[in-house]
Amino acid sequence: MTDLAIIAAISIFTAGLTVAFGAIGPALGEGRAAAQALSAIAQQPDAGPTLSRTLFVSLAMIESTAIYCFVVAMILIFANPFWNAALELAKTAGQ
Amino acid sequence: MTDLAIIAAISIFTAGLTVAFGAIGPALGEGRAAAQALSAIAQQPDAGPTLSRTLFVSLAMIESTAIYCFVVAMILIFANPFWNAALELAKTAGQ
Amino acid sequence: MTDLAIIAAISIFTAGLTVAFGAIGPALGEGRAAAQALSAIAQQPDAGPTLSRTLFVSLAMIESTAIYCFVVAMILIFANPFWNAALELAKTAGQ
Amino acid sequence: MTDLAIIAAISIFTAGLTVAFGAIGPALGEGRAAAQALSAIAQQPDAGPTLSRTLFVSLAMIESTAIYCFVVAMILIFANPFWNAALELAKTAGQ
Amino acid sequence: MTDLAIIAAISIFTAGLTVAFGAIGPALGEGRAAAQALSAIAQQPDAGPTLSRTLFVSLAMIESTAIYCFVVAMILIFANPFWNAALELAKTAGQ
Amino acid sequence: MTDLAIIAAISIFTAGLTVAFGAIGPALGEGRAAAQALSAIAQQPDAGPTLSRTLFVSLAMIESTAIYCFVVAMILIFANPFWNAALELAKTAGQ
Amino acid sequence: MTDLAIIAAISIFTAGLTVAFGAIGPALGEGRAAAQALSAIAQQPDAGPTLSRTLFVSLAMIESTAIYCFVVAMILIFANPFWNAALELAKTAGQ
Amino acid sequence: MTDLAIIAAISIFTAGLTVAFGAIGPALGEGRAAAQALSAIAQQPDAGPTLSRTLFVSLAMIESTAIYCFVVAMILIFANPFWNAALELAKTAGQ
Amino acid sequence: MTDLAIIAAISIFTAGLTVAFGAIGPALGEGRAAAQALSAIAQQPDAGPTLSRTLFVSLAMIESTAIYCFVVAMILIFANPFWNAALELAKTAGQ
Amino acid sequence: MTDLAIIAAISIFTAGLTVAFGAIGPALGEGRAAAQALSAIAQQPDAGPTLSRTLFVSLAMIESTAIYCFVVAMILIFANPFWNAALELAKTAGQ
Amino acid sequence: MTDLAIIAAISIFTAGLTVAFGAIGPALGEGRAAAQALSAIAQQPDAGPTLSRTLFVSLAMIESTAIYCFVVAMILIFANPFWNAALELAKTAGQ
Amino acid sequence: MTDLAIIAAISIFTAGLTVAFGAIGPALGEGRAAAQALSAIAQQPDAGPTLSRTLFVSLAMIESTAIYCFVVAMILIFANPFWNAALELAKTAGQ
Amino acid sequence: MTDLAIIAAISIFTAGLTVAFGAIGPALGEGRAAAQALSAIAQQPDAGPTLSRTLFVSLAMIESTAIYCFVVAMILIFANPFWNAALELAKTAGQ
Amino acid sequence: MTDLAIIAAISIFTAGLTVAFGAIGPALGEGRAAAQALSAIAQQPDAGPTLSRTLFVSLAMIESTAIYCFVVAMILIFANPFWNAALELAKTAGQ
Repeated sequence: MTDLAIIAAISIFTAGLTVAFGAIGPALGEGRAAAQALSAIAQQPDAGPTLSRTLFVSLAMIESTAIYCFVVAMILIFANPFWNAALELAKTAGQ
Repeated sequence: MTDLAIIAAISIFTAGLTVAFGAIGPALGEGRAAAQALSAIAQQPDAGPTLSRTLFVSLAMIESTAIYCFVVAMILIFANPFWNAALELAKTAGQ
Repeated sequence: MTDLAIIAAISIFTAGLTVAFGAIGPALGEGRAAAQALSAIAQQPDAGPTLSRTLFVSLAMIESTAIYCFVVAMILIFANPFWNAALELAKTAGQ
Repeated sequence: MTDLAIIAAISIFTAGLTVAFGAIGPALGEGRAAAQALSAIAQQPDAGPTLSRTLFVSLAMIESTAIYCFVVAMILIFANPFWNAALELAKTAGQ
Repeated sequence: MTDLAIIAAISIFTAGLTVAFGAIGPALGEGRAAAQALSAIAQQPDAGPTLSRTLFVSLAMIESTAIYCFVVAMILIFANPFWNAALELAKTAGQ
Repeated sequence: MTDLAIIAAISIFTAGLTVAFGAIGPALGEGRAAAQALSAIAQQPDAGPTLSRTLFVSLAMIESTAIYCFVVAMILIFANPFWNAALELAKTAGQ
Repeated sequence: MTDLAIIAAISIFTAGLTVAFGAIGPALGEGRAAAQALSAIAQQPDAGPTLSRTLFVSLAMIESTAIYCFVVAMILIFANPFWNAALELAKTAGQ
Repeated sequence: MTDLAIIAAISIFTAGLTVAFGAIGPALGEGRAAAQALSAIAQQPDAGPTLSRTLFVSLAMIESTAIYCFVVAMILIFANPFWNAALELAKTAGQ
Repeated sequence: MTDLAIIAAISIFTAGLTVAFGAIGPALGEGRAAAQALSAIAQQPDAGPTLSRTLFVSLAMIESTAIYCFVVAMILIFANPFWNAALELAKTAGQ
Repeated sequence: MTDLAIIAAISIFTAGLTVAFGAIGPALGEGRAAAQALSAIAQQPDAGPTLSRTLFVSLAMIESTAIYCFVVAMILIFANPFWNAALELAKTAGQ
Repeated sequence: MTDLAIIAAISIFTAGLTVAFGAIGPALGEGRAAAQALSAIAQQPDAGPTLSRTLFVSLAMIESTAIYCFVVAMILIFANPFWNAALELAKTAGQ
Repeated sequence: MTDLAIIAAISIFTAGLTVAFGAIGPALGEGRAAAQALSAIAQQPDAGPTLSRTLFVSLAMIESTAIYCFVVAMILIFANPFWNAALELAKTAGQ
Repeated sequence: MTDLAIIAAISIFTAGLTVAFGAIGPALGEGRAAAQALSAIAQQPDAGPTLSRTLFVSLAMIESTAIYCFVVAMILIFANPFWNAALELAKTAGQ
Repeated sequence: MTDLAIIAAISIFTAGLTVAFGAIGPALGEGRAAAQALSAIAQQPDAGPTLSRTLFVSLAMIESTAIYCFVVAMILIFANPFWNAALELAKTAGQ
């Protein structure tokens, strides 16, 4: 098992794990916020615009944590500095 | 166990894991939001269109985290940069 | 343990795992949404059609995450690119 | 431990695991939906037919995720492409 | 540890695991549905027959997931295709 | 560690595990159903016979999943086809 | 580590595990049923005999799953067919 | 590590585990039943004797599962048939 | 690692584990019973003596499961039959 | 790794584990009882002395399980019979 | 497996893990705060600005813990002092 | 890995583990008691002194379990009898 | 695997773990406090300033535990005394 | 892997673990107490000073368990007696 294979394997596994576990919290949190928003609109239809605005700001805030995870996964797959360094090392040396 | 086999095995396992665990959070979150929407419509039928619109925007937002997972799984299966690099290395060298 | 066996074993295990764990979230989420829909119809029978429509759209949305899992499992069993590549390698070389 | 044994062992284990874990979510979800349906019928007996119809559609939808798991388990036991490929390889070659 | 022993051991373990874990979900789901049915009958005795009928259909639906597990366990013990194939291989070859 | 010992050890362990874990779900489910039945009888004493009948049918249904587990455990201990096959193999061959 | 030691060790461990884990579900389920019975008697003292009878039938039903576990544990310790077979084998052969 | 040491170690570990885990369920179940009994007596002091009697029968029933565990643990420590058999074997043979 | 060391290590570990895990259930159960007793006394001060008596009997019953664990732990540390047997064996033989 | 080191390491680890896990249950149980006592005093200030007395007896009862754990941990650190026996053995023999 | 590969693999894995698990808590906490804010606005629309301001300050406070995680992950990927030190060591020495 | 290193490593790990896990229960229990105390004071301000006194006695009681853990951790770090014994052994003998 | 690599790997992993798990508790606790604050402001708008002040003090108190974790993670990455000592040892000796 | 590296690695890992897990309980407990305090102030604004005082004493009490963890982590990093002893041993001897 060469060094390159180790790094590739770990990067692949981590990318998937990151985006999968990173989806659990935001999805549950957004579900809760959205559910309460719907309940609130039904209870006080006149405050609909205020509630919608607050909901969307909150959803964006919560979504941000999911996006952090997605960004890290993308970096690990397509712009992984450790992989690049290892590739260079493998090219210059006969490994 | 060659390097190619390691990378393939990890990619397969991670793709399945990602999409399976990535489905738990969104499904539960959407279930909660939808349940509350139905309860809200029953409570205030006049606000139905507003509630439906808010529900669908929320569902789309929550679904996005599931789609991140699906996208990562598809990338790992069909456009895996590590697999491509390993295949090239295996072809140029006698492995 | 040849490379082919590793990839086959991992594919089989991942396919089952994916579809099994991918069924937990959607089933619970759909159960919740359906339960609330039934409760809402009993509370406001006049809004039945609206509630049914909203329920079925929501169920379809939630079911989609289960279908992602089923699709990935089917790809892993019947259209696995890693398995095909490994089979070709095994045929061209004496392994 | 030959390759055939590995694939057989993994297939057996995965088939059982898939159908066992795939039964948890749907059973709980169906239990919840059915419980609420019974409660709704008691609360509003006049809406019985509508409630029954909605319940059965929902149960079918939830059951589908359990059936995905059963289908995958049956494929793994009786129509496993990896096992067939491994059997052929074992016959053609002296292994 | 011969191949036959591996397959036998895995089959035995999986059969027990499948039926044990496959019993948790249905038992809990049926308990919930039955509990709510009893509560509903007490609340609305006149709707007894309707409630009983709905309960039994639901119990049958939920029980089906437990039966899938029992079927798979029985197949693994008494009609295991991998075991049969391995037995034949062991007889034809001196292994 | 001979093959016979492996199969015996796995059979013993699985039998115990199956009956132990298989008891958790049914016991909890039956406890819930019985609890609600007692509450329902107290609330509506006139519906006692109907409630008792419904309770006993439900308990029998739930108990069935525990009995599946007990049956599988007994088969594994006293009528284990893999053990019989292994005993025969051990007798015919000097192993 | 001889075969006899393996089988003895596994039997001991499984017997303890079975009776320990098999006690969790029934104890919780019986606790729930008994708690509700006490609450029901307090609420409707006139239905005391009916409630007591229903409670005892339910407790017996739930206790049965604990007794399955106890029976399996006793079989494993005092009437273990695998141990007997292994003892005979050890006596006839010098192993 | 001789056979005697293995059997002794497993027996010690299992005895402790059995009595420790076997205490969790009954303790929680008894706590629940007792709590509800106290609440019921406060609510309906006139039914005190009936409630006390029902409580003590229930506690005895729940305690029985803890006693099964204690009995098994005592058997494993002081009347372990496997240990006795192993001791005899060790004495007759020089092992 | 001699046999004596194994038995000593397992005994120490099991004694601690037994008393630690055996404390969780009783402590929680007693906490629940005591909490409800306090609530009941506040609700019905006239029934104080009856409630106290019932509480103390229940606490004693629940405490018994913790005492089983403590007894087993003390036996394992100070009156361990396996340790005594192993010590004798080590003295008679040169080990 | 000499026998002395094994016994010392296990004793240290077990002592910490015992007191740490043994603190969880009692702390939660005492928190619950205390919380309810405060609520009860606020609801019925006249019953304050009775409530305080009942609370302190209950807290002492619950604390006893934590003290069992502390006692076992202290025995394992400062009066460990296995350690003493092992030290003697190490002194008499050259080990 | 060279030192460089170890450090790279651990850094990749830790970065993903950090940002994934670090997203669970904040997302759930923000979901809860936002849900309650929406409920509060519906209940008291006049206090909307105060509620929004308090909500946004709270969200920022909670988000800060997610940002700690993101910062640590970025440091581990792009400014890892251990990786830099290891690279220098690898360059100066022939390793 | 010398004996000294093993004992040191285990002591360090156990000290941290003990104080970390030992903090979970007391913190949650104290949080619950304090929360209820605040609620009780708001409900019955006149009983403030009694409530405060009861709260502080309870907090001290609960804190005691955390202090047991802290004491054990400190003993393991600064007054570890096994470490002292091992140091002496290492000095007298050349090990 | 040299000593330097071990220390670097453990430091990286621990830093990520610390900040990730250390974010869960504070985020949930702050979410709960903020949610209740919003609910309290809606219920009693006149007490807004008092509530805000109490909320911010509480949030700062809770945040402090997250900051402990962040500080430890930063120390482990940028001011790790063990790493410095190991680097010095590696420089002075040829290792 | 020298003894020094083991002790350093364990110390680093334990320090992080201690402060991370030690933050979960206090943060949740403080969140609960603060939430209830805010609710209590809104319900009874006149008792504000008493409630604030009680809250701050309680928060300090709960925070103390987090500080125990922080202190232990700091001792492990900056004043570790085992590390000092190991360093001295390594200096006096040639290791």
